[in-house]
This record gives sequence, C-alpha cells and structure tokens, in this order.
Amino acid sequence: MQAKEEDVSLGANKFPERQPIGTAAQTEEKDYKEPPLAPFFEPGELVSWSFYRAGIAEFVATFLFLYITLLTVMGVVSAKTKCSTVGIQGIAWAFGGMIFALVYCTAGISGGHINPAVTFGLFLARKLSLPRALYYMVMQCLGAICGAGVVKGFKKSIYMANNGGTNSVSPGYTKGDGLGAEIVGTFVLVYTVFSATDAKRSARDSHVPILAPLPIGFAVFLVHMATIPITGTGINPARSLGAAIIYNRDHAWDDQASNYHIWIFWVGPFIGAALAAFYHQVVIRAIPFKSRS
Amino acid sequence: MQAKEEDVSLGANKFPERQPIGTAAQTEEKDYKEPPLAPFFEPGELVSWSFYRAGIAEFVATFLFLYITLLTVMGVVSAKTKCSTVGIQGIAWAFGGMIFALVYCTAGISGGHINPAVTFGLFLARKLSLPRALYYMVMQCLGAICGAGVVKGFKKSIYMANNGGTNSVSPGYTKGDGLGAEIVGTFVLVYTVFSATDAKRSARDSHVPILAPLPIGFAVFLVHMATIPITGTGINPARSLGAAIIYNRDHAWDDQASNYHIWIFWVGPFIGAALAAFYHQVVIRAIPFKSRS
Amino acid sequence: MQAKEEDVSLGANKFPERQPIGTAAQTEEKDYKEPPLAPFFEPGELVSWSFYRAGIAEFVATFLFLYITLLTVMGVVSAKTKCSTVGIQGIAWAFGGMIFALVYCTAGISGGHINPAVTFGLFLARKLSLPRALYYMVMQCLGAICGAGVVKGFKKSIYMANNGGTNSVSPGYTKGDGLGAEIVGTFVLVYTVFSATDAKRSARDSHVPILAPLPIGFAVFLVHMATIPITGTGINPARSLGAAIIYNRDHAWDDQASNYHIWIFWVGPFIGAALAAFYHQVVIRAIPFKSRS
Amino acid sequence: MQAKEEDVSLGANKFPERQPIGTAAQTEEKDYKEPPLAPFFEPGELVSWSFYRAGIAEFVATFLFLYITLLTVMGVVSAKTKCSTVGIQGIAWAFGGMIFALVYCTAGISGGHINPAVTFGLFLARKLSLPRALYYMVMQCLGAICGAGVVKGFKKSIYMANNGGTNSVSPGYTKGDGLGAEIVGTFVLVYTVFSATDAKRSARDSHVPILAPLPIGFAVFLVHMATIPITGTGINPARSLGAAIIYNRDHAWDDQASNYHIWIFWVGPFIGAALAAFYHQVVIRAIPFKSRS
Repeated sequence: MQAKEEDVSLGANKFPERQPIGTAAQTEEKDYKEPPLAPFFEPGELVSWSFYRAGIAEFVATFLFLYITLLTVMGVVSAKTKCSTVGIQGIAWAFGGMIFALVYCTAGISGGHINPAVTFGLFLARKLSLPRALYYMVMQCLGAICGAGVVKGFKKSIYMANNGGTNSVSPGYTKGDGLGAEIVGTFVLVYTVFSATDAKRSARDSHVPILAPLPIGFAVFLVHMATIPITGTGINPARSLGAAIIYNRDHAWDDQASNYHIWIFWVGPFIGAALAAFYHQVVIRAIPFKSRS
Repeated sequence: MQAKEEDVSLGANKFPERQPIGTAAQTEEKDYKEPPLAPFFEPGELVSWSFYRAGIAEFVATFLFLYITLLTVMGVVSAKTKCSTVGIQGIAWAFGGMIFALVYCTAGISGGHINPAVTFGLFLARKLSLPRALYYMVMQCLGAICGAGVVKGFKKSIYMANNGGTNSVSPGYTKGDGLGAEIVGTFVLVYTVFSATDAKRSARDSHVPILAPLPIGFAVFLVHMATIPITGTGINPARSLGAAIIYNRDHAWDDQASNYHIWIFWVGPFIGAALAAFYHQVVIRAIPFKSRS
Repeated sequence: MQAKEEDVSLGANKFPERQPIGTAAQTEEKDYKEPPLAPFFEPGELVSWSFYRAGIAEFVATFLFLYITLLTVMGVVSAKTKCSTVGIQGIAWAFGGMIFALVYCTAGISGGHINPAVTFGLFLARKLSLPRALYYMVMQCLGAICGAGVVKGFKKSIYMANNGGTNSVSPGYTKGDGLGAEIVGTFVLVYTVFSATDAKRSARDSHVPILAPLPIGFAVFLVHMATIPITGTGINPARSLGAAIIYNRDHAWDDQASNYHIWIFWVGPFIGAALAAFYHQVVIRAIPFKSRS
Repeated sequence: MQAKEEDVSLGANKFPERQPIGTAAQTEEKDYKEPPLAPFFEPGELVSWSFYRAGIAEFVATFLFLYITLLTVMGVVSAKTKCSTVGIQGIAWAFGGMIFALVYCTAGISGGHINPAVTFGLFLARKLSLPRALYYMVMQCLGAICGAGVVKGFKKSIYMANNGGTNSVSPGYTKGDGLGAEIVGTFVLVYTVFSATDAKRSARDSHVPILAPLPIGFAVFLVHMATIPITGTGINPARSLGAAIIYNRDHAWDDQASNYHIWIFWVGPFIGAALAAFYHQVVIRAIPFKSRS
C-alpha cells in the first residue's frame, strides 16, 4: 500500500489543499523524489532496443515537423496575396501545433525533444547521457534534412524561389539582433520544457502535468509570432540546418551580404537553452545547493 | 483491492516518478496489459444494440463533420475577398476543430473514427473486427453524402460554382504529388490516433491520455494548413467521396484534364494509415515480436 | 472504503483498460449510476441561496458574453478594411472562447448554461426543474440585454450603423435556410453539452471529462465559422434577443423586407436542442427503455 | 489512510456523481477546507528563499511577457499591410498565449500573477500578505520595463514610430469609455483567476482544475479581441507602465490632446479586480457570512 499511497499524494488529487495558482502558500514537507542524475555514459542503454527506438522516433518526428511546417511556409510565401493563404499567423500555428502533437506522440518513447537545443538543455541538467544526447541530435538533423528534401521535391521551383524556408536575419536587423532573438526565444521554449518535466510538482505545477505538451507547443507558437519578422524564427538548430542544407546555396550557410549565417541558429539556441537550464535548475530549484535524498 | 490498485498505478498519478517528457528513463516493469486482438468475425456483436448504435453515431458525426466544414468552405470560397471571411486558416480550424469535438463526443460510443482511413488503420492493428470496420466505413460514407447534400441544399448556385468542396490536385502539381501529400498527411493523423489509444501508457503517453482528442484534432488542422494548396486536403475518403458524389460532375470523379481523381483520395489515405499502423505497432511497439501476457 | 473505491473505478484511471478511442470494446458491467430525474417542481430549491446564486451567475455570465462578443463584432464591422481587425475568424473565436471560459467559471455554480437553448435541452432531459429552467432563461435574457446595452453605450453611432450585432437572415438566403442553420447549429452545441455531462462515462467519454468546457466552446466556435455568412449565427436565443432589443428597430424584430425575424432565433435553437436531447437520451443512451437502478 | 481518502474524494474522480455541468445538483456536505486567510504581515516569509525566488519568477515572467507581446505588436504595426503579418488577432493570441504559458510555468513558484491587478485582487481576498503583494507588484513593473526596453533595443526607429506598444484611449472614445473597458476587461480576467483558484472545487469547478491556466489565458485573449480598438487593452498595469516608461514621451503619461492617460490603466484594472474579488468572494461564495471551519 505504501507505494500507492505516495502515488496518490503526488498527483492532481492533492491540488485542492495547495492552491498553487493565485497564492504562494508552499508546503514545507518534501513529497517528491528528485530523479537521479543521468550518468555521462550509460553502457547499458546502448544494447537496449528502447535506445534505438527513441532515435527512430526523433527522426520520424523531426521529419514530420519539417514536412508540415515548410509546406505551410511554401503555401504562404508563394501566394501573390497573403489573404488567400493561412497567413503568417498560420505559419506560427503550424510550428507550434506540430510541436504540441509530436511531443504528445513521442514523449513516452524518446522524451519528445525534436530539437537539438532542447536535448542540449536537458543534457546540461543531466537528464540524459552524453551518447544519447549526441545520438538524438544526429537523428534530429537527419530527420530535418529528409523533411525539407521532401518539401523541395514537391515543387522545386516554388521552393527555390522562396528561400526554402531557411532562417536568416531580416534586412534592417544586425547579426546581434538575430542572435539575441534566438537566445530569448529558445529560453522561452526550454524554460517551458523544464517546468513541464519538473519532478517537484508540488512546488511548481502539480495541478497541470497533463497539459504539458500544450504549453510547450504554445511557447513555440508565441516565439514564432514575435520573431518571424526578425529571423524567421529558428530556435531549433535541426530545423535551420535541414532547410539550409536542402536549399543548398552559399548564402544559406554564411553570406555577409544577405545576412544568412547558419551559426546564429546553432549558437543562439544553445545559449538560450543553457540559460534556461541555469535559471530553472539553479535559480528556481537551487538543485546544486541541495543534498539529494 | 487488487483491481483498484492497478487502476491507480496505471493512471496519471504515477507520472511524477517517470518524467516521460524530457527524459528517456524507461521503467522495465510491464505495468499494463496489452488488449487482446479483435477477432476477424465476432458474431456476438452483430446482435448487440451497441454495434448498431456505434454505426449511427459514426453516421451522425460524419454528417455534422461535412455539414460544418463544407459550409465554412463555401463561406470562404464564395466571397470576393478572403479578408472578409474566416480565411483559409479558418477552413483548417473547421476541419481540425470538428474532429476534436466529434472525437470527444463519440469516442465512447463508436471509438470516434469519423474517417474510413482511421478505421482501416485500426483494423490492420486488429483493434476491431472486419464486419465492424466495413459497417463503419459504409456509415461514414453515407453520413458524408448526406452532410454534403444539405450544404448543397442551402445554396445550390454557390455550391456548384465553387467545386462543392471537392478534393482535386491543384494546377501545377502532379498526381504523384497529390498521392504523396495524402499519404504523409494521413500518416500524421493515424499515427496520432495510435499514440492516443496505446495501451502502453507508461512507455508512451501516460501523462496525457485525457488530452487525446485535442492532438488528434490538431493533427487534422495542421495537415490542412500544409496541403490545402496541393489537394485541398482529403486524408478522409468519406469526406472526399461525399463531396464528389453531391457535386456530381464527371471531373469530380476522374478527369485527366482538370486533375480530379477520386482514387487518389482513397488509395493515398489507406496507404498512409497502413504505414502509420506499421510504424506504431511494429517499429515502435514491436508487438509482433512479443509474446502476449 | 466502498464509496471511495467506486470513485476511483469511475474516474480517468480506468481508461487504460478500456481504450474507448479507436476501439469499440465495451464493458458489459454497469459501473455508473444514472442520476435521478429532476422533479418538475422542487419546492426546496426556492428557499436555498444556491438557487438564487445560480441565477445571478447566469446573469453575469450572459452579460459578459454579450459584452465581449458584441464589442469584438463592432470592432470588426466598423473598420474600413477587415485586414486591420481580428476578422470574421476573430468573431468566431470571441463567441467560442467566451463560452469556454464562462462554462469553466460557472459550471459548478449554475451548470454553466449561458443559453436558453441549452437550458431547454437539459430541461427536456429532466436535468433541472421547470422553475429553475424558466428562472435561468429570464436571467440569461436580462444579462444579454444589459451586455448589449453597455456595448451600445460605448459608441452609439458605431453600434447603430452596424446593425448592433443583431442576427438576421443574409440576403440570398430564405427563412427556411436560416431556420435550418439555427437548428443544426444548436444541435451541434447541445449534443456536445450532453456528451460532456453524461453520467455513463465508461461508455462515452470516461477519459475526457476534464476537458468538457473546451469542446463545448469549440462547438460554438465552429458553428460560427460555418453559419456567420447565413444568419450571423444565433444558436443562443438570449444573445439574439438582447441584441435585437437594444438595437430597437422594427426590422430587428420581424421585417419581411430585410429578412429580420427574431422568431427564427428562438424556434430554431429550441428545435435543435430538442433534437439533440432526443438523439442523446433516446437513440444513444436508450434511457426510456431502461429501468433505472 | 484518512488523509488519502480525503484527497481522492476532493479530486476529479468524484465528478461522475456530481455532474456540475448541465445540472445544478449541489451536494450539501462540505467536503473541502477553506484555506486560512493570509495574515497582513507574515514575518517568517521574509527570511525564506521561496519568497525571494517568487519575486524573481514574477520578474522573469513579466519580462518575457512584455518581450514576446511587444515584439509581436511591433511586427504588426510596422508592416505596410496587415495581411502580411499575424494581424490584430495574432496580437490577441500573443497576449493570451503568453499568460497561459507563463501561468503554467510559474503557478507553483509565485502563484503566477504576472499582473499587479491580479495581485491586488488576490490581496483583497486575503490570499497573500501585504509585503508579498507590494513586492510582487514592484518586481512585475521592473520586469515589464526591462522587457519593453529590450524590444526598443532591437529596432529603436520602429519602436518610437509606432507608439511603442503603449496603451491609450483611441480617437473617438472618451476617458470614461477607456476606464470602463479596462474595468470590465480586468473583471473578466480576475474572475477567471478566482474561479480557477477556488478551494470549493466540488461546488464550482471540481472537474476542471487542471485546465486552470487555459481559461485564464483565454480570458486575456478575449479581452484583447474586444478592447484593442478602444484602449489597445491594458488590464495589466505593469504592462502599461513598462511600455510608457520606455516609450518615454510626455503623452504616454498624461496628455489631454492625444488621450494618453496612464492613470486609466492603473485605476481601471484595480477597480475591475476589486469588483471581481467582491463578486466571487461575497456574492458567489458568501465567505464573509460563513464561519470558518
């Protein structure tokens, strides 16, 4: 009975006495267990099917992510008038909505990262091992390349005439602006991911764990609404890389004249993810200052 | 007490110790029961009221689906300027939103398919019997025909002047493009359905079962955002058939010149559903390689 | 312990063994209690504070509903170009979103009807007494009149120049079209309400009760998307009455020339609600053919 | 066992027997505990890390709120045609969506206010102490100023040319109109917050606590849809103050000619929050007339 009682006391049922929203009343008792840190190398996982399956799931999810979102982008940018398309807002919905649906579908298989920056942030918090983190990033990039390739295959002329959904710093903005937009945007996303995966549910979001994929998707949607005019919104290095590789022109990689700089879309998201990991784990949770039970 | 304890340990309450999002920690213990395969023929169900009721529910749901969505389409396409309508994005919301609401309403009565491709995918996974699958498909098609008929009845001139909401391959795209778009689009939908109905909740989406109709609806919304410019988005053979039958012109069926080919909207979704069933059941769940407990 | 055990077995925890979505497997055991029919007259409720409080909550909710929605309508229709407003889709979101938020807020106080057609449908299913039903309808109409009045007070010239958010049959449609649109639209709404309040959770929506206000709000959103071009979408007699009374011109009531007919927006929704009550209670649930336990 | 049984009886599991939506059946038994009133001064909290951490969380949340929303506003207002932007509806989504995501993330740390009007309303209901309320408001205003500052830093010329996202009464409306719009708008928001945090779950929203951040975010979204044409929608004094300070022109503060009056965006929200606290605590819950158990 012991185990079960604990289950119940951790769950949503306890919310009524806590009232986390609107009040700041905090219980002092520690009613959760901090999960142990993932080791840097976990030899056992390399021989388990669930490890390889997780990579396949990341590949397929990132493939579908690029496929749906870039196709939506193509539909909007290739139209003569935006009014007869789903519009820029529709593009933001496509990115956010796909993350919502895909996190829902793959959360239990791979953790539902679909984004090297998310993987990097969770690795910094020691939530997965180094081989797993690298494996995920490789699979995400491969999935993104394939997804962008299929979109290009549908209608190459449209794809090449509209920059192929690549990310770049818009005219009038500096590289620093682009980098800053990527950093803060990724911070919003990765901070939401940390809040959703936090073990200390009673102190944070005990009443809302089941909603987790929804705010994560919404975070992606909102960052796109805000920064599409600045960088087209990366906040996902695999997405930026996949589009750039398939678009395959020099300036999609690094071209001073047209403000294409792929490094912005790797460095920015990684810095943002690191800041979010620091903010959540050190400032909010103070994990380094605690002894683990 | 035994049964109850199991209920609790399977539910959302167990999430805090698992952290499926963000980590890939997997429990080794098998804490769920794989449901038995549905038999090909289940004579008992043919004499139960719940069998016939399920078909009625599928009929009514598909009727309402076509009614609301085609009426929305008519409102958009018949306007002189898209700005004074709900727009293409509104059409995508209508399709996705109706699936969300109708899956919510009929999930417990019929399983909430509302789509022959979904029925086909679930049949391949042996989640329903052959007579039930065929019965559902017939009722879905009848409901779709009636729904489209009522929309035509409102304003026949508008309906006939705007292609009646039929699906066709847009100018500039090949039949192969249309077929591919239908295959991947239906894959996204049926994969989401499988994730939502999976029994292995602890390994997959233990924390999010209650959200199930929402990502399913979102999947439909997103596929419409991406592929309306290509095929008008079918991913539902009943919806394509209903509109084509009521529109009732040769080229709504199969006309080389104008790229109308109804077979694309049956073959494509069925292939996509089969691929999703294979991906989920064989690759992710490895069900054929397991002995059932 | 008995009572508690039953609570758990009815709740979301039981979902994993049932799999209502995607399969049609039905349990034969009756694991719920049909609530008793509400008496036609319940003298006791007339002396309880919760009865009067419920009416106040309906009044305030309908007031806020008309205030937010009509203000949104005014912002859209008074603009020269729809592109610089939230658009017709925004109007649909306003109606659906307010119903979502208000049902969430008032569900436990009054049942969260905010609509005489919903009250009528639930009364037919004997879910509330006759005095309560009439009291609710009066409070809803008063709230709607006050809400529309405040909107008119903000900017009378805009209000009167744009038909005051009244419902009418659009040019080119017959009275029969308008009536039909109201009937089916209200059917969609009230059917969703019945599905959300159904006691037979194990057979219907056992896994999704907590989402209830969301599909109800979405149903309102979707019906607006479909029928704004036909009638402006009533499906709520209090909303139609409030706008008509405050707009206060003859043709807002009954004018042959301009197709204003207030009766359409009372008769249509009531027929739709009655059909939904019949469909859910008699066809789906077969309640008249069952002995109550 | 006692404690656990109570947990279960309070939770979502009890919903099936209650049916709050659609019926008004109320249980007479009191199955919840009213939380004790927060003291005006709680010396203990000033020496706890969770107090300071809560302020940091409010600062960061309000910073991100202004950053994302003002950047979205800039993207829309600086474009020549609204059709090539996310539109006014997109602005409403940005405000509502950010509140949804941020309430989800900070609910367990600080209560997730992100708005001095919400803090004021909850203080009136004695849900937090006076020092905490003042501390929150200061941190919210600092966060808002920093967020607006970063947006200005991105592109000062765009920011200054488009009023910097400041709130003002639109031409054609009186100060009274603006004040009224702010009062009712904030009432909608704070009433939703109270409904979401109510301890009397069995009488109010027992089945929907986990959705809490969603209707709160939707309330913000809807109020923006309705009142952007009137005041640009404040309903958050920190947001109005932050934009005004960074925009830094006389008329952003108090300028008769151009209808800028910062006091409207403090007085209005505070009156609205007080009315919502009164409506919920006194009218609906009748807390002053009850003895506390």
